[in-house]
This record gives sequence, structure tokens and C-alpha cells, in this order.
Amino acid sequence: MIARLYRGEERIDALDPRDRGLAYGDGVFETVLVHHGEPVWWDEHLRRLERGCAVLGIRGPDRDFLRAEAGAMVAGCARGVLKLIVTRGIGERGYARSPDASPTLAMSLSDAPSAPPPQGLTLRWCETRLAIQPRLAGIKHLNRLEQVLARGEWSDPSIHEGLLCDTAGRVVSATSANLFVLRGGHWLTPSMADCGIAGTCRAWLLGNVPGAVETALSREEVESAGALVLCNAVRGILPVAALGERRWATRDATRALCLALARAEPAFAAVPLS
Amino acid sequence: MIARLYRGEERIDALDPRDRGLAYGDGVFETVLVHHGEPVWWDEHLRRLERGCAVLGIRGPDRDFLRAEAGAMVAGCARGVLKLIVTRGIGERGYARSPDASPTLAMSLSDAPSAPPPQGLTLRWCETRLAIQPRLAGIKHLNRLEQVLARGEWSDPSIHEGLLCDTAGRVVSATSANLFVLRGGHWLTPSMADCGIAGTCRAWLLGNVPGAVETALSREEVESAGALVLCNAVRGILPVAALGERRWATRDATRALCLALARAEPAFAAVPLS
Repeated sequence: MIARLYRGEERIDALDPRDRGLAYGDGVFETVLVHHGEPVWWDEHLRRLERGCAVLGIRGPDRDFLRAEAGAMVAGCARGVLKLIVTRGIGERGYARSPDASPTLAMSLSDAPSAPPPQGLTLRWCETRLAIQPRLAGIKHLNRLEQVLARGEWSDPSIHEGLLCDTAGRVVSATSANLFVLRGGHWLTPSMADCGIAGTCRAWLLGNVPGAVETALSREEVESAGALVLCNAVRGILPVAALGERRWATRDATRALCLALARAEPAFAAVPLS
Repeated sequence: MIARLYRGEERIDALDPRDRGLAYGDGVFETVLVHHGEPVWWDEHLRRLERGCAVLGIRGPDRDFLRAEAGAMVAGCARGVLKLIVTRGIGERGYARSPDASPTLAMSLSDAPSAPPPQGLTLRWCETRLAIQPRLAGIKHLNRLEQVLARGEWSDPSIHEGLLCDTAGRVVSATSANLFVLRGGHWLTPSMADCGIAGTCRAWLLGNVPGAVETALSREEVESAGALVLCNAVRGILPVAALGERRWATRDATRALCLALARAEPAFAAVPLS
């Protein structure tokens, strides 16, 4: 892994232990697929980063600066994952913000994940529930203990992901991917208005797949759906083969979804279509 | 400020940018008053730290090691604030835990806060609501964006603290202190079962003040109470003089509460009793 740190636009060698990212999770992050030396969906990631900074009142890094520095970092990378963390910077003890703090930027480049299983993902339901917090919903902030607890519920490597409900019992997402389910010929995905992260691949699907819409989903509606896929910006669309006792064979609608993404964004051409 | 960092029991010079404390707020902290070279309520803080680590499944630092290292750091300090941060340590990308990661410990010693206003605190209601998450309630974990947002609601230095309700409308606490209200001759404080931090000074009051109990409180019940105090481990008991338009004169019951704490714990003898 390669890593670079900045305070404002100045390279630094080490994180300050007073960084509010460490103290309070006071920041946001992005996880970006790198393909042939280019960040995929770069504009969309930069926009979400800026939206997250705006929600938290963080003066985030300049977009051109970020483009230049990240671009230099990923230039020689055939395929990998670029992670950006932006925090409010150094703070004194206490929750009050120092208005003149320079934001901290941590950029790292790591290997792309291994290919997903060709037969599709095996999922479980998580017992951890996501709390309802509209003020923080949708953005990719650094307060991720709920996801850590949920992912800690299983260690069986044959389980690839876990689905989460909110404290009101509505289905939200997987621990690190959004969920779409096929019902009545439409791809449906939960709203991110109360909790969860509004993913970049999710946004692509909502914007580009006819009939793809947000709607409330119960556990029963997920289990009785005709097909399930997970999606995120690093792995694209991931067909689901099993959830608990329920099994799904890959359907034409799922293949069509994967093909549409691969045509629009060649970085995702290697999706499983078996 | 003096700061020391450890990976496991080994001193390190700098935080790793892959630390899960930064990535996910995956850890806990304690803020401890230091008085005449000794951490005040040290056992209680160490116990809460261990409880928080247990909830998160973090293998925290050994208690004797922590006592020795923190003891050496605070030995010459007449009065200050010791902050401990314990994180799950370094992780690869993704929420799954590395079972063999050594925890990170960040210890820092800073100046004690200035004395509270002798006339009592002026409070406001915050618009930010605390999400209901029983899995994380009570412990002092590093996911504190709600408190950051709430504290960011005002910059007027004549407002000392803000009171928070949860998303169900029940009063919880201030941004960095617990709340007790005097009603019917009893000191009442909200439960920390759904959200909020179960403070060390709060625990002292519940354990040592006859009739002090947990109960649900509405905004109206707080505003119509005979007296309000905030409390935390660094500042002890802080009488409240105003909340929005409401004003309170300091009452004998409040003076008795402060005196009881000062008798039990001389580090808090300097409480305002005017």
C-alpha cells in the first residue's frame, strides 16, 4: 500500500494524534476503483466527498488539488483501490470546532479486491441494526462502528456479505454495498434518507436503469424478490445467489443489468455472468 | 500538550494512516481529571474503558500497563486532563477485523479547563437529535459526529452547553456532560440505554446521592424542574442558571449536591457554590 498525508495542501509525514478524524470520526472518506491509471466515476466521488464535507461543515480540499495529487498517485496503477480520507484536521480537546483548522487528507492506493465468486454471493442477515439519523444519512462519514459490529457477526469465509435493517425494521443495505431487488419487473433499492450510504454505483443504477427506483423494503420483500444484486464503486454489480436458506439462480434481468454497466463503464466489464 | 503513542505495549512515534480509529472511529476514549499527580476516579475510568473495548470486541491494553504508563505521564501534574484513546489498531481496507491486530493507545495530557462561571451555566436546546442505537449506548466510543454537529450549532461564547434529545424526543444529555434535574425532591437523570454516554460523575451521583435515579425526561419536564445540574468527570457538578428563556437561582439542594461530591472527592472541592 502507498499512502500520502497532507495538512491543507502541504505534505506531512505523520498524523497528529490530536486529529479530529481519530478523536471523533470527524470526517468523510471515498473508496474509488482505479482502472488503467484512472479513478473510475471520479467526478461522482469528488462530488460526494464535497457533499459530505458540506454536511459536516468541513472546509474540504480543493477539487483541482485533489485531482492532481490523486492523479499522480494512481498514474501507473493498472487496477487498484484509491482511498481518500478527509478530516476536519487538528483540534483541541472538546467537540467545538477550530474554525481555522486545515483539513487532513490521507490518500492510499491498495490492491483491487479478488474477483467475486462466479456463482454469486452468499449473504446473511445481520442482527446489528442501523440507527436512524437523517442528519448523517447518505454521506460516507467516518463513524462506522455499526458496520464494524455488523461485519463482526460472522467469520465464515463462505458468507460474503450481510444485510442490515434499520432500528425500524426496514432493510437498508449490506455492510459495504447497496442492495437492489427485482420485484414486479423493477429494480428497487431502499432510500438512504434515514441511514446508510448513498453509493456511487447505486446512483449510476438509479440514473441509468429504466424503472430502477427507491422504495421501502421489508425483510420479507427482499426474501421473496425475483433477484438480488449488491453494488459498490469498487466491485460494480454483484449478483446474489443465496440469503440464509433462500437460493436464486442468475436471471436474464441480472445479466442485462451487469451488461448495461459494463457497456457504460468498461472498468466493470469483468462482472460475473455465469 | 504531552502525547504518547503505543502499538500494543510498544512506544511508537506516529499513527499509521491505516489505523481503524481514523478509518471508522473503531475505538473508545476516556477523559480523566488529574489532580496532584493522580488520575481522579481512575478505577472507574479504567473499568468503563474495558467495558467499551468488550462491547466492540477490542483487545484493550492491560490495566496494569495502562496504570504504569499513565501514572508516569501524570506524575508531576498538579491539575490537568488525561485523555486516553484506544483503537482496534491497524487494519486492511474493509470493515472485517484483523483478529491479531495490536490495539493502538494514544495518551495525552493537557491543561485543566478554566473554572466554570460562578453564576452557573447558560444552556440551549440543540436541534441535532441523538440516534437510538442500544448496541453502542453508554460506552465512550469514537463515533462522535452527532456531538460535533450539536456543538457546531452555536458559537456564542455566553452559551456554555447544549442539551440534546434523542430521535424519539426524550432528553438525553448535554454535548459533553450528563444532566440531572431536581423534581419532587429527587435528582433524576435520563437512562443511557438507547444513546448517550454513561458518565463517571453521573455514576457517582447515582451511587451516592439518596433518591438519585434514572428516568425518562421530556423537554417540558426539564424546563419545569426545580434545578438542573450538568456533570462530567473533568468538571464535576455544574449548576445551571439558564436554559433558553428559563432561569434558575442556585438552590440548597444544588449546594448540598456539590458539597457531597467535594467531601467524597477533594479534587472537586472548587465547585461554584455562589
